[in-house]
Formats: sequence, structure tokens, C-alpha cells
Amino acid sequence: MKVVPERLKQAAIEILKGLHASEEEALLVTESLVRADMRGIGTHGVNYLKILADRVDAHMVHLPTDLTVVKEDDTTALIDGGNGLGQVAVHQAMEMSIQKARGAGLGCSLVRNTNNIGFLAFYTLMAAGQGMIGIVACNAAPSMSPWGGTEPLLGTNPLSIAVPGGFDLPDIVLDMSSSVVARGKIRRAQRMNENIPLGWALDEAGIPTTDPSAALKGTLLPIGGPKGYGLALMIDVIAGILSGSQYGPHIKTFHQLLGPTGIGVFSMAIDIERFMPLHQFRQVMQSYTSSVRGTKKVNGVSRIYLPGEIELENERRSLTDGIEIDRDVAGSLNELLEKAKSPLRLTEE
Amino acid sequence: MKVVPERLKQAAIEILKGLHASEEEALLVTESLVRADMRGIGTHGVNYLKILADRVDAHMVHLPTDLTVVKEDDTTALIDGGNGLGQVAVHQAMEMSIQKARGAGLGCSLVRNTNNIGFLAFYTLMAAGQGMIGIVACNAAPSMSPWGGTEPLLGTNPLSIAVPGGFDLPDIVLDMSSSVVARGKIRRAQRMNENIPLGWALDEAGIPTTDPSAALKGTLLPIGGPKGYGLALMIDVIAGILSGSQYGPHIKTFHQLLGPTGIGVFSMAIDIERFMPLHQFRQVMQSYTSSVRGTKKVNGVSRIYLPGEIELENERRSLTDGIEIDRDVAGSLNELLEKAKSPLRLTEE
Repeated sequence: MKVVPERLKQAAIEILKGLHASEEEALLVTESLVRADMRGIGTHGVNYLKILADRVDAHMVHLPTDLTVVKEDDTTALIDGGNGLGQVAVHQAMEMSIQKARGAGLGCSLVRNTNNIGFLAFYTLMAAGQGMIGIVACNAAPSMSPWGGTEPLLGTNPLSIAVPGGFDLPDIVLDMSSSVVARGKIRRAQRMNENIPLGWALDEAGIPTTDPSAALKGTLLPIGGPKGYGLALMIDVIAGILSGSQYGPHIKTFHQLLGPTGIGVFSMAIDIERFMPLHQFRQVMQSYTSSVRGTKKVNGVSRIYLPGEIELENERRSLTDGIEIDRDVAGSLNELLEKAKSPLRLTEE
Repeated sequence: MKVVPERLKQAAIEILKGLHASEEEALLVTESLVRADMRGIGTHGVNYLKILADRVDAHMVHLPTDLTVVKEDDTTALIDGGNGLGQVAVHQAMEMSIQKARGAGLGCSLVRNTNNIGFLAFYTLMAAGQGMIGIVACNAAPSMSPWGGTEPLLGTNPLSIAVPGGFDLPDIVLDMSSSVVARGKIRRAQRMNENIPLGWALDEAGIPTTDPSAALKGTLLPIGGPKGYGLALMIDVIAGILSGSQYGPHIKTFHQLLGPTGIGVFSMAIDIERFMPLHQFRQVMQSYTSSVRGTKKVNGVSRIYLPGEIELENERRSLTDGIEIDRDVAGSLNELLEKAKSPLRLTEE
């Protein structure tokens, strides 16, 4: 069903406050979740609230989020996320990275002991919006194997990089996992009784499979084979190990009640002005964007997109067209609203 | 034919000096080239010397390399490579990044106006050897298209990340391009009259092809489809555009005499001690490495490798077994030795 973004935001805020999130963090987390739904990446959207509520009930997430700055100097910071909301911790980390980069040229803030952080472009775009390069990466519960293995040991550890765009152009943002596809895509194929393409996953024995059920018992394939394996491993090191958080097989999934997840996050901001005037950078980006868009297209392709452009257009479109929400997600949100003693309900509009 | 590494180094040094490289840069470039051959990545090895010699003859590379520090502060530096040897410029950049990270926690040095930099792990391992995280990325001549296009506009822009290993373990290093395979692999298939697998390249019309000749007229495929496209684009921005170097379609290949290449490079060092004591980091890396190595293996796989481990073992083995060099590469080196008026020749040993 279609929901107006503002109404979905109201609902999310009430639910989060009902879970003892502070007003401020309810607003921030809502912004991240609803924007993900608006951008067409529902895997990081409001469906998270049901999972969060279950974790709060099981005392596996602490709300309100209590952040501690463990270490800090002119260029670096280490934040303990207090097993609270990942969005709150990484937002704070990126604010610190930007502030440090403003003063010192570079800023790098790590987060340990946090949870699911939603979509990563949310944070890197903060830096791009301030005329900086933003980089964020985090680890995740195991779903991929080291190359040549059959056991999940690495997460689909995502990486995002955002850079300011040309003068009248949106900022450009890459937000990618290090696996070929997310587990959710394989679950959907299973529900639809469809095969999956070779190259998405391996079965339990480590053999490439087109059977979604076999794939779900096996492991996801990294992008570029050993390359994506290496990328996921390095992200595990700089986000999980370097922050003193969990890593590899010790990360627990957010989707089951097995204990705190122990997610670690890497954030960095680089001040463009240390290398060239920002207006000059934007000028080059303007011409670069034109070159990319002007590339000769494959027959049947109508447009060449910059990284993040499709998501941005989805976001803009949803302001007028509303957000498509699964009926069962809407149902679970309505239950959570009831539990939060809110009179608000999501209904067909 | 097999050549002893020390003999290959002597030859490379004489050739480089004959091309008017300084003693110091001849040693450094030789170290990078011969180590690449030792590591089994001959694409970045001594075969480069013939191409370099042609460029020097055509006045398209300036030797000896004349570096200029254009901008510098406590955390950042911008170096103009003076259209000289890429290895010399990036070695200097990484030294500055490490020194800045030692003082300020983070260091980021960019290079503009340089050429082919050899294998990237050469520089990131410098940082890991100093107890730091090292990151290097650079752009390259166009061979991939933006996703959905048919024209080469982006290089196979590589990325390397190195981290210190456990106490008695080697440092770990990822060194990957953002394309599925290098162009060289497709050229070899063409020579051998073999088909290439689907997923390596597109033909001129942007259609996936198994015909190497069609692939060479078309474009290489990025890892993970739009993900690798986005990664290559972001590397182009942080290495090429941010440094004020060339980028996208304006980079010229090193392999043809079309003018200066205009390569740009990004280097960064992160001091681990700002986040945790180095010995603690090494302790966790020790246990992490054991977990990775202990992963249950696919039937027929004898060992799980950490990123960079295969190359390191090749490097060690070549110390006793020598380096396998193509006969025509050896021939071209002997010609260059003659031109350099050196009595040295590479012969079957």
C-alpha cells in the first residue's frame, strides 16, 4: 500500500519513542529509515522497527542510546555505541569526522559495540553536503565464506563513498555491499519458487547453485570472487577489529535474538579545500558528470546513471507519489503503534 | 626462462640508468618491478622497461623524475609527479602519509601528473610495515564503460589496503582492480585461440561476449556490475579529480605513445595506535587469521589464503627457484642493456 512519507515518519517516531528512544534519536532514526524506503531500499527501511522492538523487549538493545567517546584527538575519535541505535552512533561519528576534517584536513571516527546502522549513504552524504569526501564502512553478521571455503565467516560488509557534485548537480554517492546480492533477494526467489542465477551463491558444499533453498543453507558470493572476499575482510579489520568491536564469526545477526550484534563502523571525512578550491572541484565534477551521462548507451538503455542517482530520483518521486509499503510491514507497524499507545494507524490512502 | 632475482635487478638498474633515471630512482623502480615478477604479477614487472624506454625516447616521460610538493600541511600533501616515474612519486607520497600519520594520526598525500605506478601493494605494505593501515588507489586509461554504456570511459582503477598481521604473521594486503579481469587475460585468450567466460567483457555493442577479439574492441566488465562501476568512478574522483590530475576519458594509456598519461594517485596512512595499542591489534589479527585459515574448505581446495598470501609465497619461492621470464621479454631487456652500453645479458641459467 502507498503511504505519504510524512505519515510514515510520524508513525516511526511514535514507535521509537514507545521503545524509550529519546525524542532526538527517534527523529534521527526515523529520518534514516523513511529515507531508505523513499530511496527504494526497503531492506533498510521501517521494517527494521519490528526487529528493533523485539530486541528491545529481549533487552538486547539499550535505549535511549548512551554513547561514550573513548578516545579523541584532533583527527581521530573512538566511540562506544553502548549497544544502542547504530544510526545515532554513526551520525555522531560522522559529525565528529567532519568537524575534525574542518580543523585538521582529515577526520576518522570509529564506532564499536553498536547495531544495525541502516543505509550508509545517509552518513557519507552528510560529508558531501559539507563540501567533503565522506567514507563509511561497517561489518555485519557472517554470510560469506573466505574464498575457497564453505562456512560463513564474513558479512556482506558494505562501503559507501560520497563526493560533492557539480554546481547545480546532486552529490554523488556509492553505497554497495561486498556480496553480489543481499540474502533478501535469494529469500524472495525461494518464496516465488524461482531459480537464482549462477554466481549469486554457493550451496553448503561450496558448489555454485541456482536453487535458492540450497543457497540459503550455503554462503553468498563476494563481488569479483577473491576481490570481494578481500574487500569484506579489510572492512572487517578497519571497522570491527580497529575499533575494538566484534568481527568475523563473532558478529551476531540483528534479525535473531542471539545477543548484542557487536557491529563496528569506520567513518572518514576528507576536506577537499586542502587539495583544491571547492568551486574548482565542482567545476570538474560538472564536466565529469556530463562525460559519464553522455556515454554511448547499450541498445535499449535509455539513460546512464551516476552512482546514487536512481535512489535520489526514487526519493524525490516518493514525495509526490508516496512510499509503497508491504501490507505485512504496515500491519506490524500498526501493532507497534498500538503497543506504544499511539492513536495513529497506517491505512490505505 | 628462469632468472635469479638479483641478476634481473642488476639488469633493470642498468637499463633505468641508461634511460637517465637517477641511481636512487633506478633502485626503487627496480625493487617494484622485480618484486612484481617475483610475486607472480608479471603484468607489473620488468616488461614495463621496454614500454618506458619507448616513452623516454619519445620525450613522453621526463627523467630523472622531478617531484614538486604543491601543497602541504600536518595531515595532507599534494605532489606533482612531473610526468616522471610513478613509482618514485607514490613512494614519496606514501612516505609523507606515514610521517604525517605518525605525527597527526592520519596522513593523506595525493599525486598528480604521474605515470604507471606498478603494483599498489608495494606502497600500502610500507604503511603496514610501520604498524599502520595503508590505502592506495589510482586511476588508469579507459577500458570500462559506465554501467549501461558501450564506450570505455573509466580505467580498471585499482585499490590496495594493507594492515599489519599477527605477531609472527606477514602483513595482509588486498590489491585489486575494479574490473573482473585485466585486458591482458583477454589478449592471452586471443593468442591461444580460446573463448573467454561470459562476465569478463562486452563487445562494441555492449553485449556480453565469449569472443576475445570482440571483447578487445568492446569494454571490460566491472566487478559486481554497477558496484564495480561505482567503485572505479569514486577512485577516479579521489585519485584523479581531487589531485588535479587527469581523469575519465582524459587519461592516456602508458602502452601507446599518445602523450603523458596524467595518472592521479590517492595514498593514506592511519596510525593504529590512535585507536588501540598495536600489540593488541596484532593479537586480534593473530586469532582472526586462525579463524580464516580454519574455515571448512570446498572439496578439492587444500588451503584458505589471506589476501596477498599467494603473492607473498610466490615472492619467497622465487628467491630459491628464480623468476620465470618470457623469452621475448628477456630479449627486449637484452636489447635495452645493449642500448645502455651495459655488458650484462640475461641468459638461460
